[in-house]
Amino acid sequence: MANQVGHLHVTYNNIHNLIKECTPKIGDEFNPDLMVAIGGGGFFPARVMRTFLRGVTKNKTLQIQAIGLSLYEPVEGGNEDQIGQEVIRTQWLGPNAGKLLLGKRVLIVDEVDDTRKTLHYALSELKKDVEAELSTRPESEREALRAATKFGIFVVHNKKKPKLAELPRDIPYVITIFIARSNGKTGNDRYYAGEDVDDVWLDYPWESTNIEEHDRLAMLDRSRKSGQ
Amino acid sequence: MANQVGHLHVTYNNIHNLIKECTPKIGDEFNPDLMVAIGGGGFFPARVMRTFLRGVTKNKTLQIQAIGLSLYEPVEGGNEDQIGQEVIRTQWLGPNAGKLLLGKRVLIVDEVDDTRKTLHYALSELKKDVEAELSTRPESEREALRAATKFGIFVVHNKKKPKLAELPRDIPYVITIFIARSNGKTGNDRYYAGEDVDDVWLDYPWESTNIEEHDRLAMLDRSRKSGQ
Repeated sequence: MANQVGHLHVTYNNIHNLIKECTPKIGDEFNPDLMVAIGGGGFFPARVMRTFLRGVTKNKTLQIQAIGLSLYEPVEGGNEDQIGQEVIRTQWLGPNAGKLLLGKRVLIVDEVDDTRKTLHYALSELKKDVEAELSTRPESEREALRAATKFGIFVVHNKKKPKLAELPRDIPYVITIFIARSNGKTGNDRYYAGEDVDDVWLDYPWESTNIEEHDRLAMLDRSRKSGQ
Repeated sequence: MANQVGHLHVTYNNIHNLIKECTPKIGDEFNPDLMVAIGGGGFFPARVMRTFLRGVTKNKTLQIQAIGLSLYEPVEGGNEDQIGQEVIRTQWLGPNAGKLLLGKRVLIVDEVDDTRKTLHYALSELKKDVEAELSTRPESEREALRAATKFGIFVVHNKKKPKLAELPRDIPYVITIFIARSNGKTGNDRYYAGEDVDDVWLDYPWESTNIEEHDRLAMLDRSRKSGQ
């Protein structure tokens, strides 16, 4: 039986180079001073991007903090209703999350923007941490501190499909979405350079148990695409 | 001037396959039910290993927790004495670290065992969390819970060089060190399969700003090695 859903295999080097292409713009326009990787899919993109961002921004102290969110995958202790519907925290920033984020330009990194549910959750919850920290500060300082706190999002791939959640766009937080090879504006979010992907099944290399066969399929996918 | 220090370039696929090779043994002998990735270098190996471990152990809920440790790199807030000498925590497990670890088989993952200082720190501190949790439990249960808590270590590369720190080997914790392509026993630690690397400068792909040139150098390094 023919496969009804298209697949797109991407190699490590594909992703590495998408990030390389995208980073000068992100460094120039957003210049993050903290990265938050959404694990497990954001781990690899975040680590690669840090290399390029440190080069571009000359900020040699740029650090990655990790959070663990699970949407599709079964999590120990999660019940059936939660799986596939709810976003479940498996790890978060430490007890000083708000202090860590306040006044920073924070770049959230994940591999894919699919339904947008995970990104929406991450952003909303990080903002709650910022607000909690702000509530401990003198009222006179809050406005300036809130305005200095900026969130950006980078995903390697954005799927062109309806999103289940909007990204909160409350002023004065500045939400900037950087998508490698994405073109123009989509809705109210800002996108940058290149192309989005169709609503295909994305096969990431770190999920592959046969990396040579994976690379072969990636080459086929690419030649098929360029032949369209 | 000739480069006095040898380099070894490793590709993404090299690392992916080293992990693939090593995982059946780790699944069989240690069967971890929690992974702790030491960021940033442990992020990529941990994510790849999870794929293979989930396949081998049929444990589809295996999760990665991340900790951030810095030894060589400048960290915001670290003073000069600390840099290059001390291990600095940039992130740790949440407030329930001890609860999370207790009774588990915990596999700590990093890219390289160089001076062993980071691994020593990670292991010692994780054990402190376990002990803190144990102190809240009835004395009659402690011994069994402690014995059920096991730590293993996986690194992609072990450098054959003097280590600055010994890994704590206090009974009844079981410390197992899994090193891809490492041969036989070294000192008091258990090693598995293949070969260690000499004390060379390891060039990891996620540090590369030109991945095609990196892959070319990796191929040269490999052919030079096999020609020895």
